[in-house]
Amino acid sequence: MEVELKEMQDDLESLKQSLTDASLRGSVDKLQLHLERLTNLSKSGPVRRSKVKDMSAEVVDSNPYSRLMALQRMGIVENYERIREFSVAIVGIGGVGSVAAEMLTRCGIGRLLLYDYDKVELANMNRLFFRPEQVGMTKTDAAVQTLVDINPDVVLESYTLNITTVQGFETFMSSLRNKSFSPAKAGSGVDLVLSCVDNYEARMAVNQACNELNQIWMESGVSEDAVSGHIQLLIPGEIACFACAPPLVVASGIDERTLKREGVCAASLPTTMGVVAGLLVQNTLKFLLKFGHVSPYLGYNSLKDYFPTMEMRPNPQCSNVACLERQKEYIIAKPARDAAAKAKMEAEALTVEEIPLHADNEWNISVVDDVEIEIVGATSSDTLPEGLVRELPNADEQHPPPTESTAPFLDDLEDLKRQLEALNS
Amino acid sequence: MEVELKEMQDDLESLKQSLTDASLRGSVDKLQLHLERLTNLSKSGPVRRSKVKDMSAEVVDSNPYSRLMALQRMGIVENYERIREFSVAIVGIGGVGSVAAEMLTRCGIGRLLLYDYDKVELANMNRLFFRPEQVGMTKTDAAVQTLVDINPDVVLESYTLNITTVQGFETFMSSLRNKSFSPAKAGSGVDLVLSCVDNYEARMAVNQACNELNQIWMESGVSEDAVSGHIQLLIPGEIACFACAPPLVVASGIDERTLKREGVCAASLPTTMGVVAGLLVQNTLKFLLKFGHVSPYLGYNSLKDYFPTMEMRPNPQCSNVACLERQKEYIIAKPARDAAAKAKMEAEALTVEEIPLHADNEWNISVVDDVEIEIVGATSSDTLPEGLVRELPNADEQHPPPTESTAPFLDDLEDLKRQLEALNS
Repeated sequence: MEVELKEMQDDLESLKQSLTDASLRGSVDKLQLHLERLTNLSKSGPVRRSKVKDMSAEVVDSNPYSRLMALQRMGIVENYERIREFSVAIVGIGGVGSVAAEMLTRCGIGRLLLYDYDKVELANMNRLFFRPEQVGMTKTDAAVQTLVDINPDVVLESYTLNITTVQGFETFMSSLRNKSFSPAKAGSGVDLVLSCVDNYEARMAVNQACNELNQIWMESGVSEDAVSGHIQLLIPGEIACFACAPPLVVASGIDERTLKREGVCAASLPTTMGVVAGLLVQNTLKFLLKFGHVSPYLGYNSLKDYFPTMEMRPNPQCSNVACLERQKEYIIAKPARDAAAKAKMEAEALTVEEIPLHADNEWNISVVDDVEIEIVGATSSDTLPEGLVRELPNADEQHPPPTESTAPFLDDLEDLKRQLEALNS
Repeated sequence: MEVELKEMQDDLESLKQSLTDASLRGSVDKLQLHLERLTNLSKSGPVRRSKVKDMSAEVVDSNPYSRLMALQRMGIVENYERIREFSVAIVGIGGVGSVAAEMLTRCGIGRLLLYDYDKVELANMNRLFFRPEQVGMTKTDAAVQTLVDINPDVVLESYTLNITTVQGFETFMSSLRNKSFSPAKAGSGVDLVLSCVDNYEARMAVNQACNELNQIWMESGVSEDAVSGHIQLLIPGEIACFACAPPLVVASGIDERTLKREGVCAASLPTTMGVVAGLLVQNTLKFLLKFGHVSPYLGYNSLKDYFPTMEMRPNPQCSNVACLERQKEYIIAKPARDAAAKAKMEAEALTVEEIPLHADNEWNISVVDDVEIEIVGATSSDTLPEGLVRELPNADEQHPPPTESTAPFLDDLEDLKRQLEALNS
């Protein structure tokens, strides 16, 4: 627009010079006045901030990172600026994924990889992030448009594709393998994959990719009635993968499109989506910047304001071949890991000090420790909500009676059942 | 801009008609081409959706309310469209308030009243909502600019003022009293006030206004180290007001400006702010649309992913005169309230059915009930974080030994202390 305006200015000026008639020159004067006003109007549009070379802790209004760098001074994070070294892939830029992308962008993450195949619709407007004027754009394009304005320091890569197709899955895999942003990185080229998809097939595709690449990822989900959700950490070989303990029931139509065709649609709320995205990115920050406790599973039941936690070990009978390989590797590496942990503990024992974990306590309230419940596997349910069918045989049918190889898995289960009963009694 | 462009088009056309020289006419042709391109460029700007008369549950991509109306079909909300009758006032359009405003706007709330005196700065960009191009605008103007595009159905009222000044407080009070949106409303003209301010003085001002107007409100806050927060419901006379159990310590400088002058700044994170805003608006929806459990207090400790809950009764020794009046009214109305509750219970006992609260359970997991801890008052702490000083004498000094009038308050305290000890042992 600026170029057009400048050229018009020049053309009008040279036209004026060629005219001798005073009234015609007056007409051009009038046109120039219009043009001047147009130029002023165009300047009141979006102004982008320039890139910032180093994150500064300086407390001035013009510093977009002062409140983040303050986390160091407050003793929460040791080195906040390390966030610029990390790459995070977000699969699914819907109600949760778009907000997660915005949060990471505002936190100044190094690189964001965004994957989605869908377009923005007015029906998405009850969730945060997308705006009505973006209707019809792909979600990836609309997200990049918004995010680049918010923080030009973040490297954005967007992939408009469906990861459940053969071609889409291959592109997804190779984008995760690409190490041009951080060539020295071990494993894949990203530090974390966030699954923010809304269907079982897509979750299984992310699971497959991450098991193959030995890639740590986090899963998120919101229930179809919009009032509960969860986040979950998945470390191949160490924590249950998505196929180790699959949901026993899934929606009979696989994705939103099917549901929509049948005249049914899932409910959604910006509140639940916002909370789940916030918990997901908070867990991401804790994982990347090494502070606080990274939750292996955190649920959110909004009707009761209840937040269950649990931990799930891998299933030695998992149907995913890559998961079994990662489990083997994890077991083989156990002695080395134990030795390293012991050495670290001994080193820390020499320097440890009693520092309160959370020094600020506005209300000065003491509370009892939260009870963390560990559950392995899941029990079957006789009554299923409308529209749901059993996808898999129930747990009892799926697992053979205990043999030597499954014993560790089932021992845990028995042990945890006893713990649960003790808590219930 | 459209007007300017149209006028230029007409002026250029008439100029062309007056010219006889072919080369000069060619120059005007060129100018017209530029103008055409400018017109096209200006049209690619924001396009607003038109207002929607009735909320429809129809499942089409163009319906901005389909996913919200689905809450009715899912059995969560009885009548979602009632949300259009409600007015919510949000005081403080910062990291929590702006996101709360966006959530309520996307949910299609009837009317939003926004209060803030601050301007948007680049230092706010690490939280959601405001964009760099809005730097320098008042937060209220910037919020209205964004929200009106997102949902033109919401009636927005913005007040650029500081509620802690005499003039600001008066305007705040009269705006809450104004019933032109819903003339039949009992009490004040709004259904709920959300306090999203960042300092003690402003909270006390909201508290004063709500006690005087007998106005139910919710309070929210995020700690200075950015990793914890809370929301709280305050019902004058029934639940503790902000002066009943004030925080024992507050930041030595009262507001952000003071902190900034001293070269100190509080940390903040879009995650914590997003979660607190989500919990606050979820509680608001549950309160207004009557579903689920409305939490009287819900904390969020992000380092441990711990969410404490509690309930606080009013303090019969409260320093706020209006609070004492509301307490008296509440006690006087007790017999009538009890009779109504009894009648309602009896009526429900005839029709009650066993319906699971939360039918969808993706992982099919059973968990034990959460333990709700009730704490009244607060204990003193010997060590205070840097930058904090005691604002008030500690609880023991403040309260005289039990007399008849304080007995209910202190009995509860003793009882709850015993419960806490039992839980700790």
